[in-house]
Amino acid sequence: MIDLTGHRKRKRKRAERAKRSAVGAPPGELVADPEASKSRLTAIGLGGGEAERLEGCTLEEALALRQRRAKLWLDCTGLADVDLVRRIGEAFGLHPLTLEDVVNTDQRPKCEAYEAYAFVVLRMLSGEDSEQLSLFFGEGFVVTFQERPGDAFDPVRRRIDRGAPRLHAGGADYLAYALIDAVVDAYFPVVDQHGARLDAIEEAIFEDVDAVQVPELHAMRRELFTMRRYLRPTRDALGVILRLERPFLSEETRLYFADVQDHCDQLVDLNDTYRETAGGMIDLHMTLSAARTNEVINLLTIVSTIFIPLGFLAGLWGMNFNPEISDWNMPLTQSPYGYPVAIAIMAAIAGGLLLVFRKKRWI
Amino acid sequence: MIDLTGHRKRKRKRAERAKRSAVGAPPGELVADPEASKSRLTAIGLGGGEAERLEGCTLEEALALRQRRAKLWLDCTGLADVDLVRRIGEAFGLHPLTLEDVVNTDQRPKCEAYEAYAFVVLRMLSGEDSEQLSLFFGEGFVVTFQERPGDAFDPVRRRIDRGAPRLHAGGADYLAYALIDAVVDAYFPVVDQHGARLDAIEEAIFEDVDAVQVPELHAMRRELFTMRRYLRPTRDALGVILRLERPFLSEETRLYFADVQDHCDQLVDLNDTYRETAGGMIDLHMTLSAARTNEVINLLTIVSTIFIPLGFLAGLWGMNFNPEISDWNMPLTQSPYGYPVAIAIMAAIAGGLLLVFRKKRWI
Amino acid sequence: MIDLTGHRKRKRKRAERAKRSAVGAPPGELVADPEASKSRLTAIGLGGGEAERLEGCTLEEALALRQRRAKLWLDCTGLADVDLVRRIGEAFGLHPLTLEDVVNTDQRPKCEAYEAYAFVVLRMLSGEDSEQLSLFFGEGFVVTFQERPGDAFDPVRRRIDRGAPRLHAGGADYLAYALIDAVVDAYFPVVDQHGARLDAIEEAIFEDVDAVQVPELHAMRRELFTMRRYLRPTRDALGVILRLERPFLSEETRLYFADVQDHCDQLVDLNDTYRETAGGMIDLHMTLSAARTNEVINLLTIVSTIFIPLGFLAGLWGMNFNPEISDWNMPLTQSPYGYPVAIAIMAAIAGGLLLVFRKKRWI
Amino acid sequence: MIDLTGHRKRKRKRAERAKRSAVGAPPGELVADPEASKSRLTAIGLGGGEAERLEGCTLEEALALRQRRAKLWLDCTGLADVDLVRRIGEAFGLHPLTLEDVVNTDQRPKCEAYEAYAFVVLRMLSGEDSEQLSLFFGEGFVVTFQERPGDAFDPVRRRIDRGAPRLHAGGADYLAYALIDAVVDAYFPVVDQHGARLDAIEEAIFEDVDAVQVPELHAMRRELFTMRRYLRPTRDALGVILRLERPFLSEETRLYFADVQDHCDQLVDLNDTYRETAGGMIDLHMTLSAARTNEVINLLTIVSTIFIPLGFLAGLWGMNFNPEISDWNMPLTQSPYGYPVAIAIMAAIAGGLLLVFRKKRWI
Amino acid sequence: MIDLTGHRKRKRKRAERAKRSAVGAPPGELVADPEASKSRLTAIGLGGGEAERLEGCTLEEALALRQRRAKLWLDCTGLADVDLVRRIGEAFGLHPLTLEDVVNTDQRPKCEAYEAYAFVVLRMLSGEDSEQLSLFFGEGFVVTFQERPGDAFDPVRRRIDRGAPRLHAGGADYLAYALIDAVVDAYFPVVDQHGARLDAIEEAIFEDVDAVQVPELHAMRRELFTMRRYLRPTRDALGVILRLERPFLSEETRLYFADVQDHCDQLVDLNDTYRETAGGMIDLHMTLSAARTNEVINLLTIVSTIFIPLGFLAGLWGMNFNPEISDWNMPLTQSPYGYPVAIAIMAAIAGGLLLVFRKKRWI
Repeated sequence: MIDLTGHRKRKRKRAERAKRSAVGAPPGELVADPEASKSRLTAIGLGGGEAERLEGCTLEEALALRQRRAKLWLDCTGLADVDLVRRIGEAFGLHPLTLEDVVNTDQRPKCEAYEAYAFVVLRMLSGEDSEQLSLFFGEGFVVTFQERPGDAFDPVRRRIDRGAPRLHAGGADYLAYALIDAVVDAYFPVVDQHGARLDAIEEAIFEDVDAVQVPELHAMRRELFTMRRYLRPTRDALGVILRLERPFLSEETRLYFADVQDHCDQLVDLNDTYRETAGGMIDLHMTLSAARTNEVINLLTIVSTIFIPLGFLAGLWGMNFNPEISDWNMPLTQSPYGYPVAIAIMAAIAGGLLLVFRKKRWI
Repeated sequence: MIDLTGHRKRKRKRAERAKRSAVGAPPGELVADPEASKSRLTAIGLGGGEAERLEGCTLEEALALRQRRAKLWLDCTGLADVDLVRRIGEAFGLHPLTLEDVVNTDQRPKCEAYEAYAFVVLRMLSGEDSEQLSLFFGEGFVVTFQERPGDAFDPVRRRIDRGAPRLHAGGADYLAYALIDAVVDAYFPVVDQHGARLDAIEEAIFEDVDAVQVPELHAMRRELFTMRRYLRPTRDALGVILRLERPFLSEETRLYFADVQDHCDQLVDLNDTYRETAGGMIDLHMTLSAARTNEVINLLTIVSTIFIPLGFLAGLWGMNFNPEISDWNMPLTQSPYGYPVAIAIMAAIAGGLLLVFRKKRWI
Repeated sequence: MIDLTGHRKRKRKRAERAKRSAVGAPPGELVADPEASKSRLTAIGLGGGEAERLEGCTLEEALALRQRRAKLWLDCTGLADVDLVRRIGEAFGLHPLTLEDVVNTDQRPKCEAYEAYAFVVLRMLSGEDSEQLSLFFGEGFVVTFQERPGDAFDPVRRRIDRGAPRLHAGGADYLAYALIDAVVDAYFPVVDQHGARLDAIEEAIFEDVDAVQVPELHAMRRELFTMRRYLRPTRDALGVILRLERPFLSEETRLYFADVQDHCDQLVDLNDTYRETAGGMIDLHMTLSAARTNEVINLLTIVSTIFIPLGFLAGLWGMNFNPEISDWNMPLTQSPYGYPVAIAIMAAIAGGLLLVFRKKRWI
Repeated sequence: MIDLTGHRKRKRKRAERAKRSAVGAPPGELVADPEASKSRLTAIGLGGGEAERLEGCTLEEALALRQRRAKLWLDCTGLADVDLVRRIGEAFGLHPLTLEDVVNTDQRPKCEAYEAYAFVVLRMLSGEDSEQLSLFFGEGFVVTFQERPGDAFDPVRRRIDRGAPRLHAGGADYLAYALIDAVVDAYFPVVDQHGARLDAIEEAIFEDVDAVQVPELHAMRRELFTMRRYLRPTRDALGVILRLERPFLSEETRLYFADVQDHCDQLVDLNDTYRETAGGMIDLHMTLSAARTNEVINLLTIVSTIFIPLGFLAGLWGMNFNPEISDWNMPLTQSPYGYPVAIAIMAAIAGGLLLVFRKKRWI
Repeated sequence: MIDLTGHRKRKRKRAERAKRSAVGAPPGELVADPEASKSRLTAIGLGGGEAERLEGCTLEEALALRQRRAKLWLDCTGLADVDLVRRIGEAFGLHPLTLEDVVNTDQRPKCEAYEAYAFVVLRMLSGEDSEQLSLFFGEGFVVTFQERPGDAFDPVRRRIDRGAPRLHAGGADYLAYALIDAVVDAYFPVVDQHGARLDAIEEAIFEDVDAVQVPELHAMRRELFTMRRYLRPTRDALGVILRLERPFLSEETRLYFADVQDHCDQLVDLNDTYRETAGGMIDLHMTLSAARTNEVINLLTIVSTIFIPLGFLAGLWGMNFNPEISDWNMPLTQSPYGYPVAIAIMAAIAGGLLLVFRKKRWI
């Protein structure tokens, strides 16, 4: 299972350090996170029906590629080189405050609209972890910043390689859509995994109450809660894109973005259902194990209520009062039928109690 | 009881596979679910006062029928043949993204308005299961896609056969209304079933706490939760239809759609009530069984508090200190009235404790 | 206490049957509930300062009365005669869909505005039960449909008999207001009854925890929940009337409707308070009875912890090892002060444990 | 602590009777509450830099004073004389429905705007109780109705006596503001009292769990809930005043009303905090006392698990099988080291169990 | 950890006193809190590329500085001298009601827009405590009032000293932004601290349930709740600034304020997550410790159920019925194999019970 929570933990520690140093800094000044991955540029130029890819290129090579092609996707993986981030920002005319958000990788998903471009922050699940994706798109360019190598974009790259017509012929807005769609769709397998795990737990719960790992359910609920924290603002960010009136966003592509928002709704919906289910199973587990405790206490009470008084009676006839001194002492013990009488008394008491218990439906 | 939950489970597994393969696919490309039912077309032409029905026809025959009649209802059952879905889409001018939603049968209920038609997704209860119904209606046509044979439309078919005037004379919008109304009304018996079951449990709870199957209540609550997840967006979808300004939707039919929305409200309302009732009964069961445990523990404590000390006393007089060596040993045992005195002491202790318990209202 | 819940139960069963038959029926077709009461018309004509009342009249007589008087209140009690309902609808120009709502007596309270009249559905408490009231009012007429004889309108009838000026001189809208006001005001005594019962329970809870009938509190909470389900949409329905722009509703009367809405707010408010109070008392009962269980378990533990070890010691000295064979066996038993020493040891142990318990504040 | 709850109880009983009689009455007819206090008028005329006060005057004297002065505050304490209320209404042109709200002292706080005046209902804390304050203000007059002698207006009266310039020179709207401000500010000490009590309980909870009176916390939570029911609609009423466009309300005074609304927000905020705090402490108390019960049960289990088996062993060796008949009977008892061996066996068992418990961290 | 709660407590007591005296005072009259710190002015003049700082100056010196420089930041620390506050208000044209809010340091965070300036109230974390910051900014000036020495502004002062260009060249609105940003950013370390503490507790919970200090979690949840009470209205206040249309607020600075609002959102988000996490851990702790109690009770029941009946049997054979009088008495005791038979019976019972327990999965 993707360790969203564990990730968040490490994240937090880093964010803490970054924040502390940043508090004294003026806004817009980029402070590199000391644990950030090494930066590496990949530029893909599209247009004229074929794709040109430059792996590990310099910014200058990428900008030259931009001149040659109708559409450029510049992907920057790793944020250690804040100077590179600044230079990319300058080359594409990005606002310093948005660049600060790129480097401070603890942003909530959001979309901010500027005159010449839109700035989208998403949380991307990649491999076993999650990372911040910052995406800018405007007329003829898409710029993406990721925290680490490894991302959710392989399906898009494959479609580019296969020469998917809309990716090649459409605008940069359609490319941005394809990337955002890939990020959102990557949530489905993770949500499905939780669903499958919940099904398994549900089947187990009726066979053996104790087989249910309540801490696991709690952890799952928390991970789903974390995921929801990513999905809800993602949905809102897509709403901002849908209401965007800019020349670089075509009406046709807007329909596609509406489709991604639909997927978000579905994910939030499934998420809610699974959280509710996990919560319900925690409750059910509690009810079932309380029922078992009741059963146990019932047994304890029945056994004790019968045998403690009987034990007392036996103790009574085991006392060492001297029967030879007077007939008042240990009356039955010297009678020939004393023992059977005593046993009969005890049996009567036990039987009576059993009847009472049965009447009270305790047994 | 309709197994909404169980259905969802199988659903999910399928959706998972479908999604995974679809992630790499461009939007609008139709990928058949490998478990989808075989596709089968049924066309009903209406107009001129009589109905013409073609069972298991080809798309071409259906289109020819459309020419002959004022109004066509084309029903496609089973989604295995995605090519057929695509051809239907082309014949009626449906947007590729909506066709993707038809095939990806995990959509939330919704209504999307296009220029020439409205696209409505509903979740239809049919037989023991639920399935996605995708319905398109525009000027002179209604196209429906269902996942499986078996649906909630039999009442409408019977009314067509009986020659119901509005269905024959009205527009395609009225036919769409009749179908959507049938889908929504099919929720009533299911909700009623839950209501009846809750009434039965409620009567049982006061006779025997343990007769109440808490897991059943939990399951019921979850099913009602699932149903609510279907009903709420259905209500919103009907709201979209009500606000629709299109030539293919008449003012008169709008009133009928308002009526369906009213039914939705009623269903959501009943659903809320039953979920609240189920929750309340879970709470009540907990209170009642906690009360019984208290009663049990009470008894245990009373019996133990009385008989454990008495047992100790009996044990005391059963010790084997040698009374012949000194008078300090086992004092009462050699006295003629030792035994009755001992019994009296014990009775006094027991009586005193009983008085204390009664004063504390424990007995 | 008015059995809102019990009523709902019977209601539901009927509704179920009605719905099932109605699913196949076209909309607007009136299907009589087989358990509906016999229909009976009462017409009251107002105008010219005096009231003319026709009990058990025919529709024709009522319509003739309408000609003679400025204002007609036609009341139809019992819905068995759906044909009568249809004829009334035709005579006053009522839409078939609204007539369907009249006969299907499971509607939520609502108000629908038509060109020539407003249609209001309310839930009326009458006697020990609740029933649906369907009220139409337009220029010069008020038509009411009730499910059963017995209603909340007696105060209005008395005011008509006493010649209340506004009822006689005002428009039909004022008469409609007076009827709706009577229906809403009839909730006050029922809500007050719950309040009084809660006060009584509250006083009892501190005297004897077990005197509190938790099931009763649960039932009360559910009834209040049911009542709230009636009141909230009633409030919304009144809001619709307040925003209504029709010639048959005067500005002056609008103020009166605002007053009824105010009463609704008060009722919802009281209802919320009492539900909260009932919930709080359930919680309090749980806390108090948990506290008592703790006290009981405390006692059990103290008694057991003291006397089980002492009992063991007594058992030790009651063992039958032969002291004559060696001095190792049963050491103290043959000493002259063995017994007092044993008793002293036991007393020391008991005293020590009591000290420990007191230090831990258990006693 | 102000007994909001207790008050409400008496209130309710009265309201019930009043409502029942009022149900039959036409709207606007004033029915005196049989328990209402005797009515008494106090008129204060302001203007020309000095105040003229008439205590216990007649309505006519007050109206004459109104002629002489720029501004009149007419205060009616006690609502037994409904005829006086009606005459005041006529003299100041107040709508009959608002007068009905004055007499029916169970209104929620609200503000209704009429052409010539605004009608404000508040709940005023005075002494140990709360009462309804009905306040009308328009051009040159403020009329207040209170249920009982004793109110929150003394600070305002003192400021009038001290010749506060704004009260003397400002309009009637400023006087109305001053009175409403005094009513709202009177909530602060009551809220603070709850805060102080919660602090005290919080300090006590860690010293002795049982010192916490959970019923008190529940009662406090309910009183805060009641207070919130007063404060929230008060805030809304002030919002109505702020949006009011009338000649009798100056822009400057509007700022002051905004300030009162701010105080309301603060009160609601503190109220929420204290209710949350009280709820949190109930939860904490439950956790802590559950922890103590666990500790108690732990001890019970340890003691029982060790000594019940040992007691059984002692009983075993205390059985009266005849060792003289065969060596099979009571084997160890006739051996010279039997007793020490038995004691050693018991000590070993006890020691072993203690080790197990320590390993399980139970001791 | 910052003692938000403790602070609030002292705060409240002070506020209480202040309020009580203020109730009688006219609005706008400034009443000093008797515990307020001594007032001290610091003026910083900016403009022309350098900063001029006057520590502990008089108001006149500060106003003279204002003449010399384009921009003045006047900081008043300590609110004991209400006369100084009033004079500052007059010098900068501040409304008396806002000055009252400055002195009454129990305001909720808010922003009020006046013609010539905006008034912002924030809660500033400084050192171990929190205090109210009242900030006014208009054309060419920023005036701040703090309760105590020590604040969150050191980063801003350092940037002024380092000659940060925007702070020197920008308007007073940018300076106000920098100060507000510093106040909001000071929440991050505190929130992070809670996060770190929660991580530590989370790791501990699985090693030893009892190591978790539930009271600490409750306290943390309450502190987070308090912090949220500060952050939510802060967010709203920033929203007011963002919608402000005034000449003294530039479009560029608005973007920066949007950035601060973003930080607020992040803080609220983290806060929600941590509160949810703390709540989840309280639940988890409860589940785990209930599980342990169940385990303990299980053991108790098993041991008691086996050994109490066996003890009774041993007691039975320890009774002193005289076997010499008849063969009915103490049957087995005089038989040569009586003892082994008795032991065998007991072992069989114990074994049988163990089998039953294992079958029920209790052991």
